[in-house]
Amino acid sequence: MVLLEERIRKDGKLFPGDILKVDSFLNHQMDIDLLNEIGKEFHRLYKDCEVNKILTIEASGIGIACITAQYFHCPVLFAKKTKTKNIAAAVYKTEVKSYTHGTTYDVIVSKEFLKKGDCVLIIDDFLAEGNALAGLVDLCRQAGAEVAGCGIAIEKAFQPGGARLRDAGVRVESLAMIDSMDGGEIKFR
Amino acid sequence: MVLLEERIRKDGKLFPGDILKVDSFLNHQMDIDLLNEIGKEFHRLYKDCEVNKILTIEASGIGIACITAQYFHCPVLFAKKTKTKNIAAAVYKTEVKSYTHGTTYDVIVSKEFLKKGDCVLIIDDFLAEGNALAGLVDLCRQAGAEVAGCGIAIEKAFQPGGARLRDAGVRVESLAMIDSMDGGEIKFR
Repeated sequence: MVLLEERIRKDGKLFPGDILKVDSFLNHQMDIDLLNEIGKEFHRLYKDCEVNKILTIEASGIGIACITAQYFHCPVLFAKKTKTKNIAAAVYKTEVKSYTHGTTYDVIVSKEFLKKGDCVLIIDDFLAEGNALAGLVDLCRQAGAEVAGCGIAIEKAFQPGGARLRDAGVRVESLAMIDSMDGGEIKFR
Repeated sequence: MVLLEERIRKDGKLFPGDILKVDSFLNHQMDIDLLNEIGKEFHRLYKDCEVNKILTIEASGIGIACITAQYFHCPVLFAKKTKTKNIAAAVYKTEVKSYTHGTTYDVIVSKEFLKKGDCVLIIDDFLAEGNALAGLVDLCRQAGAEVAGCGIAIEKAFQPGGARLRDAGVRVESLAMIDSMDGGEIKFR
């Protein structure tokens, strides 16, 4: 998606350790017009899939998911991160390892809102190691819900998450695929 | 707002200790059509205020804020909750006490995205004790930004947050004002 790639080149900030900050337009401050174009593109890609629910994870996926849901006319469910060990029985739970923070946390959704028969589009802002996304896919599988696929704004294609998910048979559509960020220059696929 | 009150009566769930759960349509699963009506109403209330930024707090305010921002044609900034003690100098920080969890956490926004000259509409799903909202107002004041007011979906008017903020001169517009929830019956103002 050219508009997103151009915006990343213009306003993305690179830091050592392959860190790309896009917090001026995607995940701290959010440009709603850009989110709308992202949502439209996810709809173009998944409009034939009979998506009836969008699933994301707090916090930075929520904005993109809600704007996207307007095109699918379906509700958004966001999975919650928790460190509480006493989780109620009425939730599906999966464990996610945070590559960035070196910690592990539980991710939950209420069983009430994710069910067999649902056709779920999973939305997130970033895909790198893919642990959070794999967790969301796992929650859907626990619920017996079908995963139409994943809609990702930015994929770091030089990290293994995307390949792992695709190898496992999950459809993943990323609107900006970064092949490398060496020497302060972003190369898109 | 009749639509929201009706939805709370229909799908809200009451629990002991004045707990109202609205997670089937507002803050776990989100009904995007309802969020759109909420956004329209916030725009009707604040359309003459020259709002150029919407501020909310992760996670459950983000969806409402993003949908609302479409009516104002402005970006959304969400404040982040953190327990990290080593906060970079480039953020505004305020301390918020969680009534629900009995803990205290820091809330931050990047100084880059909140500035003198900004006219800010603060959006959140709930207002009860008002600590999170007071924290967001404080962040704006630290930045020298003007607060147009607050747009709240549900206010528990029998708890002190709303009165405290209004007494402090902050405009607060709540779309559903709950006067009492005694005996399993919700009474709106």
